[in-house]
Amino acid sequence: MAPHLLDLPHHDGSGLYVSDREFTLGEVVTVRLRVPRTFGETGVLLRVSRDGDPLKLPARLVREDDGERWYAVDMPVDNPVVSYRWLLRRGRDYLWLTNRGLFDRDVSDVGDFRMTVFAGAPEWARDAIGYQIFPDRFARSAGADTRPAPEWAVPAGWDDEPAPEGDAAVRQFFGGDLDGIAAKLDHLQSLGVNLLYLTPFFPSRSAHRYDASTFGHVDPALGGDEALARLAQAVHERGMHLIGDLTTNHTGDRHEWFRAALADRDSVEGGFYYWAQDAPIDFARWQRSQADQWGAAVETVVDGLPFDYVSWLGVASLPKLNWGSAELQARMVTGPDSVMGRYLREPFGMDGWRIDVAHMTGRYAADDYYAEVARAARATVDAVDGLLVGEHFYDLYNDQLGDGWQSVMNYQGFIKPLWSWLTRPDTDLRFADLPLPIPRRPAPAVVATMRDFDGSVPWSLHSRQWNMLGSHDTARIATITGDPRLVEVGAAWLFTYPGIPAVFAGDEGGALGTNGEHSRSSMPWDQIAAGGGDRWDAATFERYRSLIALRRGSAALTDGGLRWAVVAADAIAYLRETADERVLVVLARAPWEGAALPGRLVGAGERPELLYGGSAAGTPELRLDGDRLLVSGDGPAVGVWRLTRA
Amino acid sequence: MAPHLLDLPHHDGSGLYVSDREFTLGEVVTVRLRVPRTFGETGVLLRVSRDGDPLKLPARLVREDDGERWYAVDMPVDNPVVSYRWLLRRGRDYLWLTNRGLFDRDVSDVGDFRMTVFAGAPEWARDAIGYQIFPDRFARSAGADTRPAPEWAVPAGWDDEPAPEGDAAVRQFFGGDLDGIAAKLDHLQSLGVNLLYLTPFFPSRSAHRYDASTFGHVDPALGGDEALARLAQAVHERGMHLIGDLTTNHTGDRHEWFRAALADRDSVEGGFYYWAQDAPIDFARWQRSQADQWGAAVETVVDGLPFDYVSWLGVASLPKLNWGSAELQARMVTGPDSVMGRYLREPFGMDGWRIDVAHMTGRYAADDYYAEVARAARATVDAVDGLLVGEHFYDLYNDQLGDGWQSVMNYQGFIKPLWSWLTRPDTDLRFADLPLPIPRRPAPAVVATMRDFDGSVPWSLHSRQWNMLGSHDTARIATITGDPRLVEVGAAWLFTYPGIPAVFAGDEGGALGTNGEHSRSSMPWDQIAAGGGDRWDAATFERYRSLIALRRGSAALTDGGLRWAVVAADAIAYLRETADERVLVVLARAPWEGAALPGRLVGAGERPELLYGGSAAGTPELRLDGDRLLVSGDGPAVGVWRLTRA
Repeated sequence: MAPHLLDLPHHDGSGLYVSDREFTLGEVVTVRLRVPRTFGETGVLLRVSRDGDPLKLPARLVREDDGERWYAVDMPVDNPVVSYRWLLRRGRDYLWLTNRGLFDRDVSDVGDFRMTVFAGAPEWARDAIGYQIFPDRFARSAGADTRPAPEWAVPAGWDDEPAPEGDAAVRQFFGGDLDGIAAKLDHLQSLGVNLLYLTPFFPSRSAHRYDASTFGHVDPALGGDEALARLAQAVHERGMHLIGDLTTNHTGDRHEWFRAALADRDSVEGGFYYWAQDAPIDFARWQRSQADQWGAAVETVVDGLPFDYVSWLGVASLPKLNWGSAELQARMVTGPDSVMGRYLREPFGMDGWRIDVAHMTGRYAADDYYAEVARAARATVDAVDGLLVGEHFYDLYNDQLGDGWQSVMNYQGFIKPLWSWLTRPDTDLRFADLPLPIPRRPAPAVVATMRDFDGSVPWSLHSRQWNMLGSHDTARIATITGDPRLVEVGAAWLFTYPGIPAVFAGDEGGALGTNGEHSRSSMPWDQIAAGGGDRWDAATFERYRSLIALRRGSAALTDGGLRWAVVAADAIAYLRETADERVLVVLARAPWEGAALPGRLVGAGERPELLYGGSAAGTPELRLDGDRLLVSGDGPAVGVWRLTRA
Repeated sequence: MAPHLLDLPHHDGSGLYVSDREFTLGEVVTVRLRVPRTFGETGVLLRVSRDGDPLKLPARLVREDDGERWYAVDMPVDNPVVSYRWLLRRGRDYLWLTNRGLFDRDVSDVGDFRMTVFAGAPEWARDAIGYQIFPDRFARSAGADTRPAPEWAVPAGWDDEPAPEGDAAVRQFFGGDLDGIAAKLDHLQSLGVNLLYLTPFFPSRSAHRYDASTFGHVDPALGGDEALARLAQAVHERGMHLIGDLTTNHTGDRHEWFRAALADRDSVEGGFYYWAQDAPIDFARWQRSQADQWGAAVETVVDGLPFDYVSWLGVASLPKLNWGSAELQARMVTGPDSVMGRYLREPFGMDGWRIDVAHMTGRYAADDYYAEVARAARATVDAVDGLLVGEHFYDLYNDQLGDGWQSVMNYQGFIKPLWSWLTRPDTDLRFADLPLPIPRRPAPAVVATMRDFDGSVPWSLHSRQWNMLGSHDTARIATITGDPRLVEVGAAWLFTYPGIPAVFAGDEGGALGTNGEHSRSSMPWDQIAAGGGDRWDAATFERYRSLIALRRGSAALTDGGLRWAVVAADAIAYLRETADERVLVVLARAPWEGAALPGRLVGAGERPELLYGGSAAGTPELRLDGDRLLVSGDGPAVGVWRLTRA
């Protein structure tokens, strides 16, 4: 039997433990701690930061039953960001419970629980299920056939395999368009997703469109402004939401701003970019080492012009924006008439943005406008109760306090650790951040990583992170695992975990892909209509559909706390809990030894109700045996049970 | 035999591993990693942050011998703060080495090594040994007898025991003065210290003088401005340095600024403070909970005036400064004519400041001027190549990047963990930050805590933290341990560890004290002259003197890296290393099992040279036995050996 973790005290930022969802400066919030009776604590304090010097507040015992004791403290929120941790006395010693776990020693403050006065994601995002669409590859409307391909494009057949690298990957043009998306909303509604995220729709010179040549209108090749307005309306009519994708880090080198800047570096637009002549650090070295990093040659001239500007990772086509320019800020993000604001208004009325390479935005040499840009963007999106999702791969501790992005694409805290649990052991596939194959790791390492990154942000953000199994920048989960059973295990994790679960279009049909470019495959509509084919697995679609329905049908899965129950090498189990509902999730990548959980997890007079069992993977057995709740060691396996309903 | 830790790869910010001591923006620094051959790595990368997105740079093997491999990377410092970590491939997996240790999983960025372009402490502080003087209790000059006691004071006899609490502790007046200190420099020079730190010398209404009534001149009860000038000159003539103590968080309630503010809240000085009427949070609740925290009653009226201002922890006599006032910043810290600057100029020419409750400075409700004040203070001190030591008990991760305080009083990262290793197991004594007795913990917990806090700051700061065994705000180490052998173990740790080691006056003679107030004992000069007495232990003095000489005689102890060799429950061992010298420190609080270290630690053809052995505590045996270096398990014990000298 694998040991369980339910003898440990627990707190998180969910409603069971924190009295409010949003906090205002000066408010007093009641925070609670649950401690299993077996723990043996002799007293509890809360340490909470205030004006730089923590208060130590005694906790009161508010409830006690056979199984556990609950403590509460009225905690002041007297600064915009408050850090707190629990102290549990035990005999002559004490332990700290922080957001990183339980410690029998003193620990520094970076692991503390945190709470902020910044509002989280909008209320409508609470039960959002995201769906990422790469417009060129999703669907073609009839109108698409009437439009010529752009001059940079190399037209592809709809069922062609995407090129995995090089110029071909950039130019390969499948010709999907926005009216094509609008025509397929039945598919999305049948799947159960309700928040569409479109990668960029601005005119550009690539299939990915991250190299915008203007932010002034939608690419005519996608149907133009009118098509976006039609799509937004159709999405909203179905009660769904729609967000776009904006590059705040750079523009394309054909962007009208950059062209004006090239023509006259003393122009207003000249101040939007970084030039070698002004670089506070050695520009040539910087450029060279960026190229080294990507195994590329150093270009010094592009299109006959000197490549003497700072660009995204040294890629000449993506000149980097300089947010020291107040005019740039006004044009790009501030207020309803900015680029960011304009598409949130009629006739588009989009519901927010995903921000490309958010983590690099505004950062170059000694400049760091990151927080300023994030806050300005947030104000613009808040004005329409919108959602802002940052692409952020790295250090969230200072970068996601809640006053900027309400959510980030959770590569480090979800996708990558999940992959490293479910990957084929012999894979050569890589994750985007390292030039190394994905290692296969046991769940304790994987879960520790997730908790480490989750612990970097307040619960209001952790519970709304944008979690996926893969995106347009990674391999596909079906290729990573090579096993539909493990795809089901991964999908079950995604849809039962805190966050905004999101699907990269095609994953729901088992699409394959070895890297970001190769994963940008088209949707095989013919096969979908036919009920399956070599590019569409209807059984996978049904699993995704069921798991999404499971998610949307459970308040605990949508918004409950997270308590780890078992973390064995090949299996994990966790509880999602609200005051009214307790759901147990068991996931196994391989057969394991099973576990005995406390029987009191099941409500008095209730029986576990199986909400989802594996269909490709197996379903573990769960049974009450006296005061024990026995979980069988099947694997690969998925089981989701409702244990109590108040 | 306890296991040793020398099979692990190692990097720190010292000269063996980093090519430069100070860094400029855009510089390329060579960083190095040592890996024992037994580790089995198959490749090494460095991950280094740049503009928000890390570079991954392959390391080159630069040296290899029987024992270890050395790798190097030329690392760009392209942002003011750079985070980095090492990746070691091993088979299909990889490990990360960060400032928090070695991980076989992915970890978030907060544990990374960091490097900044901000200069560290001045060069003169490199071999500084601090000595803290509480002026009222150090020594009386002949002149002191001619001055009447201040009207608030309750005169005490020189050999009286300090009151441990209450009004008596505040008013008890021993009448030490600055000329008294000047007359005792022989004692300090004989001890070997070279950096004197005086707690406040401004006029006030307490023995501690943290409640200044003016910053305009030195308290006449201490001899006034002329006495400070004489002391500074005398200190400098001996090649020593002198720093003062400034309250940037608050003034006294009799301060001339506060009196002007009370008289007219619309005055310039009215803007120096926070008033209930302007509080962005519920002032009455704030004040009440501060009082609750300290077990005090809530005052609403003080001296017939309403207590309607914000104050330090709700203490009425210490009104808190509002750094939103530009005039306050100008008067207090900016430039040579500010309070801070004035005492760094002739005729005083002091060498810097210790900043009282630095961590609360500028922080109240939604205001946070902390970083701004710290940077302004730093500029003023930098102008005279001075030292700025912050009192900071809590989260250093964002608060000590190097652009403010170059050093902080290392309560959490040194004093407290050291105490929790050496304390009597049954103590009722408390550390200042928690209302609980100090727990006695095994070295693995203690060292993990030290590494955790050390890892919160760049090496340039860690290696200059202000380490003590106790201060005017804590109990005394002799009382904490109750055992001269353990005092010697603690002192040996202090003087062989990275940082600026500092002695609270009296500790060198074994002074006792149960808390901050009680520890403010006078120096028993009669007993010192007589070679000992009930308040002076000459043997302890000799041990401190020898340990200070040891420190000052070894470049490795002063400025070398730190490699942990053994961390057993009752014993620790570490190496301090430069390119030229390797010193081994072994400390035991009790008998233990001993250890076998790699024999190659001793230079070829060399033999370990005992630099210091315990005199109250025992001295372990150290001997080469083939390829092993055997350490005996004596305890309590202290041994310091030079293993190699290039």
